[in-house]
Amino acid sequence: MTRWALLVEYDGAGFAGWQRQAQEISVQQVMEAAAARLGGGPVGCTAAGRTDAGVHAIGQVVHLDLARDIDGDKLAAALNFHMKPHRVVVRDAVPVPAAWSARFSAVGRSYRYVILNRAAPASLDAGRVWHVRPRLDVGAMRDAAALLVGRHDFTSFRAASCQAKSPLRTLDRLDVIAEGEHILIAAEARSFLHHQVRNMVGTLKLVGEGKWPAARISTALAARARAAAGPTAPADGLTFMAVTYPDPLFGDGSKRCFFEKQHPKTFST
Amino acid sequence: MTRWALLVEYDGAGFAGWQRQAQEISVQQVMEAAAARLGGGPVGCTAAGRTDAGVHAIGQVVHLDLARDIDGDKLAAALNFHMKPHRVVVRDAVPVPAAWSARFSAVGRSYRYVILNRAAPASLDAGRVWHVRPRLDVGAMRDAAALLVGRHDFTSFRAASCQAKSPLRTLDRLDVIAEGEHILIAAEARSFLHHQVRNMVGTLKLVGEGKWPAARISTALAARARAAAGPTAPADGLTFMAVTYPDPLFGDGSKRCFFEKQHPKTFST
Repeated sequence: MTRWALLVEYDGAGFAGWQRQAQEISVQQVMEAAAARLGGGPVGCTAAGRTDAGVHAIGQVVHLDLARDIDGDKLAAALNFHMKPHRVVVRDAVPVPAAWSARFSAVGRSYRYVILNRAAPASLDAGRVWHVRPRLDVGAMRDAAALLVGRHDFTSFRAASCQAKSPLRTLDRLDVIAEGEHILIAAEARSFLHHQVRNMVGTLKLVGEGKWPAARISTALAARARAAAGPTAPADGLTFMAVTYPDPLFGDGSKRCFFEKQHPKTFST
Repeated sequence: MTRWALLVEYDGAGFAGWQRQAQEISVQQVMEAAAARLGGGPVGCTAAGRTDAGVHAIGQVVHLDLARDIDGDKLAAALNFHMKPHRVVVRDAVPVPAAWSARFSAVGRSYRYVILNRAAPASLDAGRVWHVRPRLDVGAMRDAAALLVGRHDFTSFRAASCQAKSPLRTLDRLDVIAEGEHILIAAEARSFLHHQVRNMVGTLKLVGEGKWPAARISTALAARARAAAGPTAPADGLTFMAVTYPDPLFGDGSKRCFFEKQHPKTFST
């Protein structure tokens, strides 16, 4: 039996999210169906991040166990063949220790949220951005974002349905970057609460519109009540970018990103 | 009567290209139908670049004449309203002199072509890239591209259907840039022959695969025969990025891009 770590990309539109659902199609279901074709029986898939419906992924990490003797490139190609025509692909596959978990071994997760800030609706990037018409004050959003970085009780930014035992999280990075008509929000943490990124973005938008002073973010945080923060930003603009794992698995004394845009093979080196 | 210059973005999938067709839906048809709603009668739309079926645009420029008194923002919003749900939007609208033409006043056009160079098929950017599986040699492609820059007879890179009187063109830029799994090819010229960018890209791919030495590009060029160059790259990977117009229209002694990512309002300032 070999445990495989897979680097996975998908278009969130058309999926009910990562996790299996009774009614709608999920990424997990598509991957497990493809894996079953190779495994000759049911194969479970575990993901680093259980993305919601409509959320995209470029660097999702998934593990599964297969008895079959196969090399990584062939495994990725076979899974991709069986997953067609769903818009999910395995970009890379590497063998990992049997105790390694895509989910529980992860020590860092990063997301990117994209706002399209202009009068005209999205066309070329429809379904990939949140279209916000009023001109947003990126400087004010940046000031507000800085107030969320660090270790806090994020109850105000957590979905009612969130199953995490503790609302405490350490937000390592929340950058707000203007790129032409787009505003990129980059978030990094060991882990996030359910809807945390989208609730932070929805609240930063209130600051950007001038409806909230930046400092009100701290009041919202201190309130520890979901109603104290802003609305949930739409799923369309969110992409799960990368997962980080600790050094023992790599043996070189450093944390590593499973996925890095310039070095997709980093994990296996 | 006011002549308007429009900055236009569209998703090329689902359109038979810019130009009106008898059978299939075109960007021109969608825009002219929307403009007719505002103009109270037929309104013609002229584009800087008559993009082919499947080719995308971020910075297409179009002109039209309207008798109606309206401001630019309202005109853009009204056209966008009437063009829904087609994936074409007017990003900006500015009044221009009556003799100005989006097509004939243009002195520069730029295109971007994106190759996805990896084993796994496209998922998140399906329809926006050309998926090429074998690892391409970007250095060799760059060497070959440099041989195409300058003033040449581009007969070998011109579609049989090309209606241009002369096959002579001056290619100002043909950069090949590696960005992770993507290879971007940026092309700039005063104007291009029909399929010229896609035929250049299809030929550069042969060089990248090692099927052609870079120098064979010069042989292909000198042959002045379409059969001497490589195949036409698919439309999916191509985006019309920007159009440049000469200074008299701007009055500051410099050429200007109607569209620049960081400064969408450049033209009107």
